[in-house]
Amino acid sequence: MNRLTNDLIERLRALLGADHLSVALAERELHARDQSAHPPHLPDVVLWPTTAQQVADVLRLANDARVPVTPWGVGTSLEGNCVAVRGGILLSLARMNQILRVHADDFQVTVQPGIPYKDMNAELAKYGLFFAPDPGANATIGGMLANNAAGIRTVKYGASKDNVLRMQVALADGRLIHVGSRSVKQSSGYDLLHVFVGSEGTLGVITEATLKLTPIPAYMSAVVASFPSVEKAVEAVVAIRGSGLDPAALEFIDEAHARMLNHEEGVDLGEQPVLFMEFHAAYEETLRLGLEAVQQICDELGASRFRATTDNAERKKLWHARHHSYEIMVRLHPNDKIYIMDVAVPISVYPALIACAREALAAENVKGYMIGHAGDGNVHVELLHHDADSYQRAMAVNRAIVTRAIELGGTATGEHGVGLGKRPYMAQEHGAALDVMRALKHTLDPNGILNPGKIFPE
Amino acid sequence: MNRLTNDLIERLRALLGADHLSVALAERELHARDQSAHPPHLPDVVLWPTTAQQVADVLRLANDARVPVTPWGVGTSLEGNCVAVRGGILLSLARMNQILRVHADDFQVTVQPGIPYKDMNAELAKYGLFFAPDPGANATIGGMLANNAAGIRTVKYGASKDNVLRMQVALADGRLIHVGSRSVKQSSGYDLLHVFVGSEGTLGVITEATLKLTPIPAYMSAVVASFPSVEKAVEAVVAIRGSGLDPAALEFIDEAHARMLNHEEGVDLGEQPVLFMEFHAAYEETLRLGLEAVQQICDELGASRFRATTDNAERKKLWHARHHSYEIMVRLHPNDKIYIMDVAVPISVYPALIACAREALAAENVKGYMIGHAGDGNVHVELLHHDADSYQRAMAVNRAIVTRAIELGGTATGEHGVGLGKRPYMAQEHGAALDVMRALKHTLDPNGILNPGKIFPE
Repeated sequence: MNRLTNDLIERLRALLGADHLSVALAERELHARDQSAHPPHLPDVVLWPTTAQQVADVLRLANDARVPVTPWGVGTSLEGNCVAVRGGILLSLARMNQILRVHADDFQVTVQPGIPYKDMNAELAKYGLFFAPDPGANATIGGMLANNAAGIRTVKYGASKDNVLRMQVALADGRLIHVGSRSVKQSSGYDLLHVFVGSEGTLGVITEATLKLTPIPAYMSAVVASFPSVEKAVEAVVAIRGSGLDPAALEFIDEAHARMLNHEEGVDLGEQPVLFMEFHAAYEETLRLGLEAVQQICDELGASRFRATTDNAERKKLWHARHHSYEIMVRLHPNDKIYIMDVAVPISVYPALIACAREALAAENVKGYMIGHAGDGNVHVELLHHDADSYQRAMAVNRAIVTRAIELGGTATGEHGVGLGKRPYMAQEHGAALDVMRALKHTLDPNGILNPGKIFPE
Repeated sequence: MNRLTNDLIERLRALLGADHLSVALAERELHARDQSAHPPHLPDVVLWPTTAQQVADVLRLANDARVPVTPWGVGTSLEGNCVAVRGGILLSLARMNQILRVHADDFQVTVQPGIPYKDMNAELAKYGLFFAPDPGANATIGGMLANNAAGIRTVKYGASKDNVLRMQVALADGRLIHVGSRSVKQSSGYDLLHVFVGSEGTLGVITEATLKLTPIPAYMSAVVASFPSVEKAVEAVVAIRGSGLDPAALEFIDEAHARMLNHEEGVDLGEQPVLFMEFHAAYEETLRLGLEAVQQICDELGASRFRATTDNAERKKLWHARHHSYEIMVRLHPNDKIYIMDVAVPISVYPALIACAREALAAENVKGYMIGHAGDGNVHVELLHHDADSYQRAMAVNRAIVTRAIELGGTATGEHGVGLGKRPYMAQEHGAALDVMRALKHTLDPNGILNPGKIFPE
């Protein structure tokens, strides 16, 4: 890999215009780290292309010069996915942030990659439609697709990969291709769409995407229930899904998390594992019947507390503590940093995973809160640390949980992607398939210029 | 590509056992064609491996000898996808047809590829679960995954690609890898799972699959409604989907098809475009409310006939004509063959596609019936032909419709795959991405032994 030369900078400036390139330290520092604890790295230059062709041209120039290119949405990733660890070009898609076309009758929208999904959804609300994946932080569509972001409502609506139909992608050698189709049914040749979704900018740069949209549900209900054990909470998850109730969110928090919310928010969750649920329906009557069934399931499994509502204001109140739990945690631990780890397993082994996490936290004397998208078997353990020693211990907990998740038939990452942090686990999880991933990388990016240092163990 | 030698046959016999290999003409003829009109080709040998390792070993031997291998499920494909057009080895997965494990609490099942999906679903019914994609013919799971088969209920439950989590795959060089994970949320490295799904046996052979299952719905309703025009029928599709009613099936037939069913089945559909619908719910009350809403939508759009029911027996009667329409057509045209073509477009341009089909049928004087999964924008035109001339004219109609579908932003195939018949359209549909598909093929199957002659234009 080569360093960026002044000559290349001049060619990039000529390509994009002086306003769309910066070598200023302040800009480079603004693009040096994501929201994770992974250490920052300064890129040599920050670029803001405004067209797909410019993105392709930047890649061609960088490829010819063997200079690294790291794509950047808005920097909300959690595993260092968009940190330019080899320097070179930081390619910000922030100025390609337009909705190009709303295909309302097709329940689709075509957008540029730099649009933040909450901003897009605010506009789409006018059409009664929304893009369902919801990672929380106001990530860009390009970043969500590149990391296959998911979130709370994935249990009903799927992850980013399930809500995209077609993309335009710039390849490392400067070709601009389209993958997928605006047809929702597709069996025409290889599924290149999903080759690029989740590839974290290491195979190509997404320059445009047509997304699948969902009608905004007419009615929503909420349930919060506390269970005597993780096992009982998981039994409830299985029973609720098995009953065909099709929850739109099925969130888990552990005792430590519940205790924190009880204390800080004045809620009464008990010091027990808690499930937060949401249901969507076209009719209020469906929700009412559903809540009866959910209550019966929860009662039979010994739920100590059960609150349910079909009222919008009440629903928001019930979920308030869950939605604000991260900021509550930050406020409560002003001297700590928080490492949010992410694994996912088949739901039947969720209790075993939680037990492993609990043991590892105790063994390493690390303070941690567990929160998870239980409907998907996804769990995040929020690991507190404040110095080098506690960071090392938090990382030991992380290792124990990730290793166990893979042993249990799960994955090292359900929604944060591999980035920097999950590279050490790729061989354990994928075995010989990791060689196939390497071959794919070599086929599409033979010079290794795209987001180098990510996904693959060194 | 080399011919099969006696030496290789002996090595294959030693590997599999004499009972699992045949060079008999009768067996070769049984594996020479699928259910399409594409001409048969005799393979040189038929193999029935019984383990994944045997599949991998067969591929290694074939790869070393540069002999073609064409995987085979049960031969129900519709574009010649499993026809051994270069001879060589026909690899039947028919004897790898076991359910390996039902993960009931995870809503998953792990199976061998040769199990027919209807047989599998009969067993899974004991657990209250089913695999949702339903291509109609009793295809094998391996074949469905290899072709990304879909069917009637895709509008709610997705295609095969949306209902698979993990596979074991044998590669051309004899490596056996696993792709995906039993975790429903996955963002760990490249999505190799979807590289192999829909690759029609040209990149690897699926030797095991873990499928996503759905609880069998407690209640189902049916609606049949006739509309004054295709435009009005499509408006109904959009309005029903937009209302959040989440139909489980939304099927279209054209006037010609309706006329045939009226005459042969004694049903009263009118000689108009007709929509057949199905809705699934956990509560009968939800269905009742849904039917009211659907009726209102259909009334407003001028539906001349509307029948709806939540009764099971009545529902089956309403759908009977639709489910049996293919055999009715065959009976009605004893001297004709039927070429079932398959394209899909965004629903907003469905009327334009149907108009194009109608014009092409008239221009070429070809008798055709249209039937489609309108909820997905998918249409099949069933083209009748009886001699070389009428076959050529039917193919001209096919070309006109496929070309138009691609122009309209759709795809050359929504669910039948490329096989032999759709190769000529790959460049038009995919442009430069076709080169990327070729590169992927070369990476995974450098000697081109896997199902040669498919997907790529010559």
